Amino acid sequence: MRALVLSDQLTFNPNYPAPTPAPGEAIIRVTRAGICNTDLELIKGYMGFRGVLGHEFVGVVESITPAPAGPLPIIRPGERVVGEINAVPLASPSRDWHQRAQDPARTTLGIDRRDGVFADYTRLPLVNLHRVPDAVSDDEAVFVEPLAAACQIVQQVHLKPTDRVAVLGDGKLGLLCAQVLATTACDLTAIGKHAAKLDILKQRGIRTMQVSEAGSIEARRFDVVVECTGSPAGFDLARQLLRPRGTLVLKSTYEGLPQANLTMIVVDEITVVGSRCGPFEPALRLLAHKRVDVTSLIHARYPLHEGVRALEHAGRPGVLKVLLDIVS
Amino acid sequence: MRALVLSDQLTFNPNYPAPTPAPGEAIIRVTRAGICNTDLELIKGYMGFRGVLGHEFVGVVESITPAPAGPLPIIRPGERVVGEINAVPLASPSRDWHQRAQDPARTTLGIDRRDGVFADYTRLPLVNLHRVPDAVSDDEAVFVEPLAAACQIVQQVHLKPTDRVAVLGDGKLGLLCAQVLATTACDLTAIGKHAAKLDILKQRGIRTMQVSEAGSIEARRFDVVVECTGSPAGFDLARQLLRPRGTLVLKSTYEGLPQANLTMIVVDEITVVGSRCGPFEPALRLLAHKRVDVTSLIHARYPLHEGVRALEHAGRPGVLKVLLDIVS
Repeated sequence: MRALVLSDQLTFNPNYPAPTPAPGEAIIRVTRAGICNTDLELIKGYMGFRGVLGHEFVGVVESITPAPAGPLPIIRPGERVVGEINAVPLASPSRDWHQRAQDPARTTLGIDRRDGVFADYTRLPLVNLHRVPDAVSDDEAVFVEPLAAACQIVQQVHLKPTDRVAVLGDGKLGLLCAQVLATTACDLTAIGKHAAKLDILKQRGIRTMQVSEAGSIEARRFDVVVECTGSPAGFDLARQLLRPRGTLVLKSTYEGLPQANLTMIVVDEITVVGSRCGPFEPALRLLAHKRVDVTSLIHARYPLHEGVRALEHAGRPGVLKVLLDIVS
Repeated sequence: MRALVLSDQLTFNPNYPAPTPAPGEAIIRVTRAGICNTDLELIKGYMGFRGVLGHEFVGVVESITPAPAGPLPIIRPGERVVGEINAVPLASPSRDWHQRAQDPARTTLGIDRRDGVFADYTRLPLVNLHRVPDAVSDDEAVFVEPLAAACQIVQQVHLKPTDRVAVLGDGKLGLLCAQVLATTACDLTAIGKHAAKLDILKQRGIRTMQVSEAGSIEARRFDVVVECTGSPAGFDLARQLLRPRGTLVLKSTYEGLPQANLTMIVVDEITVVGSRCGPFEPALRLLAHKRVDVTSLIHARYPLHEGVRALEHAGRPGVLKVLLDIVS
């Protein structure tokens, strides 16, 4: 099959071996895939990953290999699916997405010891798959994985209607997080650097602010700040915007070991919450009910065989989502 | 009056002006005071503090100036007291210790714009004072402030009986934190570098471990880790000992801006809780009921006029609590 394979560098391989089905797993024909910042970091060496890149996808179930002693699969060949990226062995006691996401025996789709989705076919445990409702297009479904990560914020932190909440960063993840937080009754402000990106939120009635204006607002105004910049400067600004005893949610990974003002975390008694993968079903519901707009984030699309160019494009400053059309 | 005063350096001043009583405040004759690591940091320049150093004390109320419209004071002259260090203006809406500790208008005893307790007299708002029960000696009462800070951990974090909890660091604060956590039903391990210090805990039936052995224990074993070393290496070890989705409590302040692995906080979905000043009444109860042993931490005592030497002594490696006898 065709695949974008990461070894010393990323290359398009027209003859990569197709995945072998394992008990309890499905083979999925990938139709569309999304490029994530993590893919760009993996190319730079993060996690030391080798194999087929990619973890954001929508596809059609090609075949199923039931587990010998397991329950009958509820997903059938021909169905359109998205898939959670953390895969655990059949024998693992982890029974739900929340346990699987931190299972020490997990492999992670296109990130850690498991071939990913920038290919004609991929494989995943049946328990990882979620049927995509007809109301959700392929272009939307490809956003389910990062949208689920945004939902994880409200899964972990209780946002009260009276809470003043800021999302810092207007990259792909920041825009999705702001839209998910806007589904709550909290008093939300999205803070970023790019007028064009913030406009996507403004058009949905979300209050936005340039990061250059953030200095002018009352310091320590926010009860909760969600850090989506992944930069030490963003971490520090987030801390300064937060009231004493507030909650700082970290969504982004950071390059290297950034310097962080741990003393002020103690003095201000801040709670820092690390937040990563999230629940797929709420993300699918938000899309089906048109409560978030993800297609405005699509900046470009490429066929699979031009994938190396697609990833270069995704790495340019200011670019939001780049899609790969595997089957067009 | 006599006082240890920090300006460009720390000096003993035999003729420092006595504090002027203000409405709603008491003048307290200090009998005994304790030297804290924060005092040593203030001498190095932390907070840019200038004035009388010291915030851990026990004393006797000398005089009271009631507030014009306030309730009658429940503390009377001649009573033995300890005092919370965060002082707010009479008009502040902060009504309890928890609000005062983060009130933006607060001054802090011997730390931030308020003369401290290494002197014959000090002053504090009446609401900050707590009567010391007869069962608690002066040597014990002088530990109430740091013991309250240790109590703040269990005030902020629910430690379940099934939780595996580690305290990292066997300095003064680490030893107090371990003893307070040992009052819960959690499965506790204190980890440090100094056999003699850990012995204080061992003798109270607390499991201890050398930090050099920490590598041999099952990684990611602990549900909660309390970081009391204040070093970047301690922060990193704490993170590594913690299970995914565990809670890391930061008790110490850090010199400068340490490097911190924020990425692993996200990947492991760790919650970091900054923890500082705590409630005095529980600390007094623990002392009155002999549920903690603080006097074993006393390494030396000096008269006030030898205070500069006392602080030098307190700064030597391996030294635990050094006391100042103001009135002996």
